[in-house]
Amino acid sequence: MTPPVAGTNPVSVSPDGTSHTLPTTTETQARLEALAASAQRHRREGRQVVAVQGLGFVGAAVAAVLAGATDAVGRPLYYVIGVDLPSPNSYWKIARLNAGLAPVVSPDPQLPALIHNAVHQTHNLCAVASERAFALADVIVVDVNLDVCNRGELNPANIQIDLDGFKAALRAVGRFMRPDALVLIETTVPVGACERIARPVLQEERARRGVDGPLYLAHAYERVMPGPNYVNSIRRYWRTFAGIDKPSADRARAFLSSFIDTQAYPLWELQDPAGSELGKVLENSYRALNIAFVHEWTLLAERIGVDLFAVIDSIRARKGTHDNMRFPGFGVGGYCLTKDSLLAQWSATHLYGTDTVLATTLEALRINDRMPLHTFDLLAELADGQLGGKTITVCGASYLPDLNDTRNSPTELLVDTASQAGASVLVHDPHVKRWVERPDIPVSDDLADCLRKSDGVVFAVPHGTYRELTPEALVAADRPLLIVDAQNVLSDPKAQALHEAGCRLAGVGKGHWRKRGYQCPR
Amino acid sequence: MTPPVAGTNPVSVSPDGTSHTLPTTTETQARLEALAASAQRHRREGRQVVAVQGLGFVGAAVAAVLAGATDAVGRPLYYVIGVDLPSPNSYWKIARLNAGLAPVVSPDPQLPALIHNAVHQTHNLCAVASERAFALADVIVVDVNLDVCNRGELNPANIQIDLDGFKAALRAVGRFMRPDALVLIETTVPVGACERIARPVLQEERARRGVDGPLYLAHAYERVMPGPNYVNSIRRYWRTFAGIDKPSADRARAFLSSFIDTQAYPLWELQDPAGSELGKVLENSYRALNIAFVHEWTLLAERIGVDLFAVIDSIRARKGTHDNMRFPGFGVGGYCLTKDSLLAQWSATHLYGTDTVLATTLEALRINDRMPLHTFDLLAELADGQLGGKTITVCGASYLPDLNDTRNSPTELLVDTASQAGASVLVHDPHVKRWVERPDIPVSDDLADCLRKSDGVVFAVPHGTYRELTPEALVAADRPLLIVDAQNVLSDPKAQALHEAGCRLAGVGKGHWRKRGYQCPR
Repeated sequence: MTPPVAGTNPVSVSPDGTSHTLPTTTETQARLEALAASAQRHRREGRQVVAVQGLGFVGAAVAAVLAGATDAVGRPLYYVIGVDLPSPNSYWKIARLNAGLAPVVSPDPQLPALIHNAVHQTHNLCAVASERAFALADVIVVDVNLDVCNRGELNPANIQIDLDGFKAALRAVGRFMRPDALVLIETTVPVGACERIARPVLQEERARRGVDGPLYLAHAYERVMPGPNYVNSIRRYWRTFAGIDKPSADRARAFLSSFIDTQAYPLWELQDPAGSELGKVLENSYRALNIAFVHEWTLLAERIGVDLFAVIDSIRARKGTHDNMRFPGFGVGGYCLTKDSLLAQWSATHLYGTDTVLATTLEALRINDRMPLHTFDLLAELADGQLGGKTITVCGASYLPDLNDTRNSPTELLVDTASQAGASVLVHDPHVKRWVERPDIPVSDDLADCLRKSDGVVFAVPHGTYRELTPEALVAADRPLLIVDAQNVLSDPKAQALHEAGCRLAGVGKGHWRKRGYQCPR
Repeated sequence: MTPPVAGTNPVSVSPDGTSHTLPTTTETQARLEALAASAQRHRREGRQVVAVQGLGFVGAAVAAVLAGATDAVGRPLYYVIGVDLPSPNSYWKIARLNAGLAPVVSPDPQLPALIHNAVHQTHNLCAVASERAFALADVIVVDVNLDVCNRGELNPANIQIDLDGFKAALRAVGRFMRPDALVLIETTVPVGACERIARPVLQEERARRGVDGPLYLAHAYERVMPGPNYVNSIRRYWRTFAGIDKPSADRARAFLSSFIDTQAYPLWELQDPAGSELGKVLENSYRALNIAFVHEWTLLAERIGVDLFAVIDSIRARKGTHDNMRFPGFGVGGYCLTKDSLLAQWSATHLYGTDTVLATTLEALRINDRMPLHTFDLLAELADGQLGGKTITVCGASYLPDLNDTRNSPTELLVDTASQAGASVLVHDPHVKRWVERPDIPVSDDLADCLRKSDGVVFAVPHGTYRELTPEALVAADRPLLIVDAQNVLSDPKAQALHEAGCRLAGVGKGHWRKRGYQCPR
């Protein structure tokens, strides 16, 4: 990838609106030279050099944690170089990191603190938009994206994976890496990808350079959770890994042990990378299925008048066997649960050529993808099927409470469906300034203003702001609202007060509301 | 139900082979009079009288626990009368209980101890084959069976429930109960059954007698687990309940609190019995689905050469979210997981008249029902499709390790399928003397003898006996065996030793065995 030439350099805009001009070839070259000198200095002080490829949700946090890893007397263990593409989509992450700022805005105060300290105090963290930086590294951690092109496609034969970016990333690593560097892939990949995709690409590039020594390659899947425990979801959490051979596994173990609290969270080593790759997509498929399962029972509970939240609360008391049952809800978003099962199915079909079909697993994705339509149905029912001309406020554009992450947010389907049904839809979210994936949909931060204009409101995300709303705040409008609570935002006493104030209410999983006459009987 | 007349009395044979002659009308009458006198005496000593209807796996243990419940100074709280039918199928339970013996053989020493003590020391437990005993009781606990006629039927419209026995049981209660007795249903019932089936039946019978006072009726589902924690699965475990109204719920709470350790396991009260009924079938459906889910991934792991046990071990380290993931296995048996989902679907369709279909839930039952066929496929593959004329030992006839419970054992389908394929099938089980549901299939307790006659062996249940087998014990036969391990009975080193001794091996979920060449490549 050639950096753009001087004079015509495009800019990269970060989510907070700041523009960063992409560097010229000369600037990048100078930067690389400075990095090489720094790396040399750090190496003389006994530090290894680690390159982290990809500075997204995972890579940025991994780089921060690695830069914060210390030896027994508190000295940094690594000099960490974040590497991302010199593209308008990515460069802002590099610019932010070099300014000592976290690319990802997180409620976890540890993340910005780690990055600030590493950049400004210990000077062992920096970023660059050039793959040549891999030449400096003893360990290369791969945290690039690998996406499914057609999420929503459930025909095993038709699932398409965007392998180009992943292969290009590995090709760059192979082209520049030190022959004996450890390549540790953390990206969630199709099962078998390390052995059958990454390894051949790396070997091909190395062979082209005449490198024929052993390749050290391992997979260790991350379980990074953006949120209040962002950093600890790396540092203090279980980690599974596997190497392509024993030397690779041994090096991966030593590396992982250097920044993970393996006293409290011992490492799990599997026999081969396919096991580690399978583990990641299996555990996310498990979660996705259990969400879909509860949705099926949600529909039943609503029909027969049962409060499914109370029932599941009581079931979750069975610790160890049932305490992870999911609650009724609005839908599933994010990067992982919406696609990881497809990676497994793609592998089964295309990488291993089997006729295995993960039928129940794929059906769960289908149920989850369509789940917001049930909330739409409740809304349409409250409106007696007459949404045309009505204004509806959808509360929440992110896919998790009290976060600003809008990737694959289920709100999108609700907004589009309600709009198609003739409603004017306003979207409110206290955490999302700009809906990156849907710039055409403005996001308001003034709930009172939205409600004043609205005939109805849907709680799609259980942000704290919404949980704290009083019934008075909701009935301040001059007309009683139609209210759909898709996320157990309203307590029963609040719902009763709103009912008495003339609002019509429906709630996902709240069969008892129907029984109490908050909505018309079917 | 009229007891049979003298002279022609049939006998009731208990699982250990002992015959018990059914009592005559006169004998039963005399027994009832004795019970009434005892009840009177106990009542004078401040005890309440509890009748337990149904002395099966649940009722027998509940009766024992109630008889063992004491006040603060260790005095029994209740005089407990077990009631079952005067039929050849049931009477032996009454006879055993009155002899101070547990009807159910259990590895939990607490069960026989409780019963022995109550019958022989505190004299506050007895049993009788007459529903007239309900007239003596302050509390009637309903623990009768309620079965699905056609397990395996997944068309929601065609599921048939055997309600006759349940209704007859409730009718008997209504006919004889004290007007102000509490009726507590513990039976797993279709959702809505308390309100829509039990209540009308009880009210009808009470009205016939001119009783028009309030009916006290509640549902509290049991989570009895036959096994080493049999008694504590009642006494020291979470319990969910709901009454048809507040007075019923209050009485149920007081009663449950008297024999459950509610300090450690606080009670969960739900708004109405439908919630409690739904909870039971939902939690068992959850378990069944998660078993089916892992089976789907088992097939994938075997095809691509991954050790799924190791992968799931590593995933289960995620406490609270993933630690209940199931392991690959042979199939699902028992009374609950194989049918409870059908009760929910039947209710949705027939009791509430909805068009709700629990599609994923029902599909899970289908997968589980057919699961043993995968083990058969592995066996047939090892035999190169030539099972005709071969002798195969199936190890394990129960559905749980180290127990003798054969209800809906998945071994049945494997035995029948292998027999149909021309194999001579021997069944071994160290715990099952007689396969009650399949008296046509003899069960051997001499494994060495079975193996001597066999070409192959299938581990269908992970009994301790099988886990402890050495490779030497398995290759003692004069020909190397075909071995299918459907329950992770053989460790990898043992499998390797057997492989080196010439055996061919396949394992459910053990993709790495295939990779190691234990079985022919596909």
